[in-house]
This record gives sequence, C-alpha cells and structure tokens, in this order.
Amino acid sequence: MTGKALTDYSRAVQDKVARVRAVVSDLHAELPRWDLVVWTAGNVSQRVPNLGVPDGSADLFVIKPSGVSYDDLTPADMVVCDLDGHLVDGVRAPSSDTAAHAYVYRHLPEVGGVVHTHSTYATAWAARGEEVPCVLTMMADEFGGPIPVGPFAIIGDDSIGRGIVETLRGHRSPAVLMRNHGPFTIGRDAKAAVKTAVMVEEVARTVHIARQLGDPLPIEQAHIDALYTRYQTAYGQP
Amino acid sequence: MTGKALTDYSRAVQDKVARVRAVVSDLHAELPRWDLVVWTAGNVSQRVPNLGVPDGSADLFVIKPSGVSYDDLTPADMVVCDLDGHLVDGVRAPSSDTAAHAYVYRHLPEVGGVVHTHSTYATAWAARGEEVPCVLTMMADEFGGPIPVGPFAIIGDDSIGRGIVETLRGHRSPAVLMRNHGPFTIGRDAKAAVKTAVMVEEVARTVHIARQLGDPLPIEQAHIDALYTRYQTAYGQP
Amino acid sequence: MTGKALTDYSRAVQDKVARVRAVVSDLHAELPRWDLVVWTAGNVSQRVPNLGVPDGSADLFVIKPSGVSYDDLTPADMVVCDLDGHLVDGVRAPSSDTAAHAYVYRHLPEVGGVVHTHSTYATAWAARGEEVPCVLTMMADEFGGPIPVGPFAIIGDDSIGRGIVETLRGHRSPAVLMRNHGPFTIGRDAKAAVKTAVMVEEVARTVHIARQLGDPLPIEQAHIDALYTRYQTAYGQP
Amino acid sequence: MTGKALTDYSRAVQDKVARVRAVVSDLHAELPRWDLVVWTAGNVSQRVPNLGVPDGSADLFVIKPSGVSYDDLTPADMVVCDLDGHLVDGVRAPSSDTAAHAYVYRHLPEVGGVVHTHSTYATAWAARGEEVPCVLTMMADEFGGPIPVGPFAIIGDDSIGRGIVETLRGHRSPAVLMRNHGPFTIGRDAKAAVKTAVMVEEVARTVHIARQLGDPLPIEQAHIDALYTRYQTAYGQP
Repeated sequence: MTGKALTDYSRAVQDKVARVRAVVSDLHAELPRWDLVVWTAGNVSQRVPNLGVPDGSADLFVIKPSGVSYDDLTPADMVVCDLDGHLVDGVRAPSSDTAAHAYVYRHLPEVGGVVHTHSTYATAWAARGEEVPCVLTMMADEFGGPIPVGPFAIIGDDSIGRGIVETLRGHRSPAVLMRNHGPFTIGRDAKAAVKTAVMVEEVARTVHIARQLGDPLPIEQAHIDALYTRYQTAYGQP
Repeated sequence: MTGKALTDYSRAVQDKVARVRAVVSDLHAELPRWDLVVWTAGNVSQRVPNLGVPDGSADLFVIKPSGVSYDDLTPADMVVCDLDGHLVDGVRAPSSDTAAHAYVYRHLPEVGGVVHTHSTYATAWAARGEEVPCVLTMMADEFGGPIPVGPFAIIGDDSIGRGIVETLRGHRSPAVLMRNHGPFTIGRDAKAAVKTAVMVEEVARTVHIARQLGDPLPIEQAHIDALYTRYQTAYGQP
Repeated sequence: MTGKALTDYSRAVQDKVARVRAVVSDLHAELPRWDLVVWTAGNVSQRVPNLGVPDGSADLFVIKPSGVSYDDLTPADMVVCDLDGHLVDGVRAPSSDTAAHAYVYRHLPEVGGVVHTHSTYATAWAARGEEVPCVLTMMADEFGGPIPVGPFAIIGDDSIGRGIVETLRGHRSPAVLMRNHGPFTIGRDAKAAVKTAVMVEEVARTVHIARQLGDPLPIEQAHIDALYTRYQTAYGQP
Repeated sequence: MTGKALTDYSRAVQDKVARVRAVVSDLHAELPRWDLVVWTAGNVSQRVPNLGVPDGSADLFVIKPSGVSYDDLTPADMVVCDLDGHLVDGVRAPSSDTAAHAYVYRHLPEVGGVVHTHSTYATAWAARGEEVPCVLTMMADEFGGPIPVGPFAIIGDDSIGRGIVETLRGHRSPAVLMRNHGPFTIGRDAKAAVKTAVMVEEVARTVHIARQLGDPLPIEQAHIDALYTRYQTAYGQP
C-alpha cells in the first residue's frame, strides 16, 4: 500500500467507496451466471468518480481480489486502488489484472467500468487473432461494427492496458479481444461493462456457429450505422 | 400515448387485459429458462381478443417493456398497445419490436401470440440466410417442412412485420428466421408461440450439429405430411 | 380403454402399479436435468412384472401422458397400459410413443424399462443415419461396441417398435438411434434405461466433438470386449 | 480388506481421515457443478499424509465409492485405501479407478490429490490422441505448455497409473489426457486437482473452438515461461 489510505479521504468519498464495493461485489455474480468464467477467473471494476470535494482528487476504483472464488466474494473483499493501480484499501491482494484496469481509467476518462473474462467463444476468436465481423443486427446495435483484436501482451508492464486503449480508440466497439488472451469490455459504469461482456460472448458464439456451415451474409455499412445510432439513443427506458 | 386510454374500455376488457398481463409476464420466464435470450433481449406478446362488447373493438395486445431485465419483470411492467402499435397503457416504454408484433396481429387474425428471440443456432442459420431443412421427425411434427428465412429488414418502418407475414404465408411453419436478425414465432396464444420458439432453437441446433459431420438424410414429403397431420390433431391431451 | 380395468387386478398388482407410477414419475425429472429433452418431448416407461398371482397375467407398464409439461408430472398422471398398448388406467391420454414401448416389452421379456428422447447429439447422428463408433473406453464399458442406427419408421403401426427390437437384437448396445428421429434405450428397469439415455447423449457428443477435428483412434475389439465384460460384472456396489 | 484396519491406526490418523473424508465428499460436488461428469462417472481422491506418529506409516488416501450417484455421496460413503490400493476402511466398494490413484500416490510423493473425469472436450482430444497446444495465456499460466496425451491402457493392472506417471514426469502440466479415455489431474491436495480438472476442460474446449475455424496463433516459448512462472508464484492471496 503506497500513498494515501482510504481514511485520508473525506467521509463523502468513503461512503461512495462503500456503495461501489457493494455494486462491484454483486456484479461479479453475473459472470458465472452467464457462463463467462470458471473457477476464480475474470474480474469487474468500477471507478469511484472524483467528487470535487475539498480534500482533492478521489480518482479511485474498486476491483476483485486475486484468486478468490465467486462463491466467497463480499463487499468487504473488494479492493480499492488509485489510478496508478496502487492499493488504497483492502484486506486482500487485488486482481492480477489491476494494472490493466488502472491504465484504462487513466487514459479513458469517460469509462466508469471495466470487465475482463476468458469467455469461451470470444477467447477462441482471440486465439486466432481474428476480429468478429458484424453480421448480426444485435451486433450492429451494441457494437456498431466488428469486435476488434488487440495485440499480444503479457502481465508485467503497461502493455495490456495500452493495447486495450489503443485498440478501442479506433473503433465504436466497447469490447476488445486481446490476442491469445480474452475479452476486455468498458462502459459508463461496471453494469454496462458487464452487459457488454455478456453480449461479446453471445455474438462471438453466434457468429462462430454461423461460420461453421458457410459464410454469414454481410450487413451494409449504412444499415449498421442506422441500427447503432437508433439503439444507442432509443432502446430501453427513458 | 395516442387515441384511447385503457380506462376508456369496458370493465370486461380491463379485466381481460389484467389476466393477459399476468400470462405474458410469466411466459417471459421461459425465455431465459430455455436459454433463448441473454440480458434483456427477446420479447413475448399476446393479443387481447375483441370481446364484442358494446364499447366497440378491443383489439389490443400486451408486450414486454424495452430493455428491462428478465429478473425484474412483473405484470404491472407489461405494456398494452393497440394494433397500430400505439401505447394504450403502461408505466414503461414498450419493446422496440412492438411495431413488428402489431403488424403481425393486424394481418394475421388467427395469431394470438408472437415471440421474438436471438436464440443462438436459429440466429446462426439466419445470419447465413439459410432455411433449416426438415430432416427430423420432430421437425415434421411441429413445422411440417423447413423453417423459412425472411428478408433483411431494419427497425423504423413496417418492413420487419411485413417480412414476417409474407414469409409465413407461404409456409406451414409457425416460425420465420429474419435474415441477420433472429427468429419470430407465432401461435394461437403466447404459450404456443413460446413453445415454437423453444422448438425452433432445438431443431436449428440439432440439424446444425448433424450437418457438421455430413449430410442429414432427407425425409420423404409424404412422411413429413403424415407426421405433421397426426401431430397437429392427435398429440397431447384431448 | 379396452379389456380389463386396473380394479379387475388383485390388490398386489394394484399396489405394485402404484409404486411403479411413483418411480416413473420421479425418473422423468432426470430427462430435463440432463438436458435430454425440451418442453414435453421424451418419455420413460417401466414394466409392472407378472406377479404370478391367481387372477392371471399382470403384464402391464406405466408410461408418461402425452404432451404434458415435465413441471406438472405427478404419479397420478402416469398412464397404465397393457402390452398391446391399450389403456388400462389413467386420467390422461398416454404418450404417442406408447405402441413402440409396448412392442419392446412384448418382444424382449428381459427388458423392464424403456426411454425415448430427442437428445441433441444422438439425434444428430440419427439424422445422418450413422452409428456412433466405439472409440471411448466409457463407451466400451457401457455399450460394448457401436451404438447402432435403426430404420426410418413413423408412428401409426408397429414399425418403430419392430425397428427398435430388430436392431437391438444384433448388438450388445442397450440403445438404438432411430433414423431421423432419436434414441430409444432399454434396461432391466426404467432407471437403467434412463442411465443409458444419459450415456448415449454423452458419448454421442464426445465422439462428435472428437470427429470435428480429425479421426478418433480406434480401440481394438479385444480391448472393447475386456472393458465391456469387466464393467458389466465388476462396476458399482455388490 | 487386507492388512491393517483403520482402527489399527492412532487416534490422530483416524481424526485426519475423518477430515479428509469430509473434504473429498464435498469436492465431489464440484464435478457435476462444472459439468465435468454425468451420472456416476469421475472421482476425486486425497492423500492422508504420513503423520510420523509412533504407530508407523499412515500413507492412506480417501476416494469415491464405485457407481454411486453424486446426489447420494456423504463423508461416510468415502472409502479409505492404502497406497497399494487395498481397502482399509469403508462401507462401500472403492472406485474402479482406485489402482490408478494408488499408483500415482506411490510414485509421486509431492502429489496430495488426484481427479479423474470424462469431461467432454478433454476426452475428445484424448480420443484423437492429440495433445492440447498451449495457445492461450490462461493455459500458459496453469499448465506451462501443452496438455500431454498418455498411452492407451485398460483397467486390470498398473498400466493406467504407470501411463499417468510416466507422461506427467516429462511435462510441467498437472494434467494428462489418457488416450481414448479421459483426463487425470494432480495437485498438492484434492482441491488443486479439482481446479485443474476444471481448467483442463475449459482450455480443451476453448482451443477446440478456436481450431474449428482456423489455426490459433502460437505463443512464444519465452512468453509461456514468463506467464507460468509469474502465475505459480504471484497469483492469488499470499
């Protein structure tokens, strides 16, 4: 643990962190529910936004501890880190993907949530280094184009985070398939990133199955654009 | 909300709507149960038949709200629309597929229920624009022939509804695979349409798997006809 | 209902029927549990053996009613038929596969239970009319060789039952894949036939997946024989 | 039952055996939970370490009984054997794979747990006699290279155990795919071997799916080595 401790922050920040711990803990249950992870793999994080309070920046995020079973996760197990990925508060060691999450939050200020899984079909496309082509209307809705592939990168420096950010900057897609590794997804909050993680696997599986017996029919770019724009503005409850 | 409100209808109609809301809400639980949907995708609707009461036509239908989790659906969340797809009653915005359901009810008076999913194997056939051939006895029973493919169509006008209706008119099948999109199914009520949605995915998966290792053996048309006729008349409880 | 009613049988037979109704009702829960059926498809039956009591033959069997949801099955719903497939007792119409079960009990006196499903992978092999080759030790254990394919046959006469019996007589396998239709399995009682239905799907799936990326290695006939003999005599509790 | 009975051992050994029985019984629930087994297939064992107590060696292990449903397993059903595979204590007959487990414990003193399943994708690779190549970062983490294939061997002598041990000695992988049979995994205790059984199936499935549509991209050996070393030392809680 380096730098400030959580008790150095204002009461408002501490309260916000407590709420985010509960949210992130609960959202982890969605990963096994949708068959996106086995054993202790995968992780969800959410940013604790800068509240603009007098004690200065509270740019923190909350993430899963490393190697703990999904059965055993509670809000108290969630780990609080700053945007350099340093531990601020927690009784457990943070996820080994913490540096990648921190890099994303540092470089993409609009991102409020990040999810990483090794979901089967998405990881299979990643193993071949092949993007998922946009051949389903639900994929046009959610991703606005193909799901891109990021570079091969291993844990130990900024290369995973940098690969995620550089790949996502060139695409509408809120998901990237890191080569030989698996998907990372982003969203305005952790719930949105979890939804995208579910949808990545769904479309990766459906397009895979379509491809097994022939070539899916392409969707014209103008139709993809129309579907994406409508879905991003008109779907769901106002 | 345009035209009449639900309170403008007779008590008998209002009672009937309340019962259909409960039925449609309950049937939505079958979609995740049979792995036909992820997250908030998919929808079920049921017609509220014209009761011939003095206050005139009650041609309404009840449908899922847009973008709401299956965990959270209650009868009160279900939305009531008229056959032009206009909102008549509801605390939430209706499904973005409402216009397609309305078109089907308007043009196929015998249809009492409609279901739409993105179930994986059916959607994979739809992505290739390929009908599912009738090579299983259970498929002859239920569909009486192949499951046809409808045209590519996007949300915004009548083109999805028209594509469903025109395709179904040429086939026995109570299901159509809309190209690059997914299956729509019909039935005398919503439960029958849900059953067909389950069976579409089942036969789409089984025929896909059969095709992965070779060519399924065809069934003679006379046998398909005999199986279909028997099943439609003799299966189940009197 | 033709011939004798259940009340024409001795108290001992009636008690035995009540016990078999409970067994068969409970075993139906195994079919959805192991993902062998969707909706109302599939059925389990068990013979009520001739008890040798003074009122003569009690060669009956208990089977699922037609088209009833697995959620709703109770012992009272189970239907009792004689070996000609005629209804002896029941408040519901029997399964439309009753004639096939009756034929098996009539011609294979050692069989005490029969199961029919449309389980996905087994049905896919059946759609191609291709037997499942014996390339797994667990398959040698359970089936003692390939799982054979029976002829194409449709409901309406004895052809399904005859196809099952004639195919099984030429093989060790307690399972047959009826062409374009699905698996039928037999056993000394219904539980054994259910187990075989589970194992049929398991080996059909595993061998399918093995074949997708190449040719499974054969197992020598002498090894198949040794595995089969050991498993049939030494596996399980004495 | 040959040699010593459990009551011939010290109280400390008997207490330890009771604890291991509970652990092994509970861990069996993980096999159906992760879809690694059907019906009664598969088994978990754990060594009861030599406690160095005055009454001499307590080299025992606890294993599943043969052919008992996962629903019915309790600690009392677990069977205690010595390292020759002879029954020491139990009300049931031990797993028919007991000799293979015993061989592993006899020859690999660092192994504290062994698991055997017929999980679908791993068994499919085994049926082709093909190792799973290391093309996923999670596979580099867990296995440090390919998952190797062991020889064809059948029950009746030491050949399965010898095949496991000889194959594992040449690899980092804590899992071996026995040809035409299925995976065996090892670990410092039964929980670690169960985790590996889960991961074997996960990577066997993901690499299978990747291979269905092309060739997965290789990972350089230096990267595999770096990932393996980090994961074995830095993952999880201290």
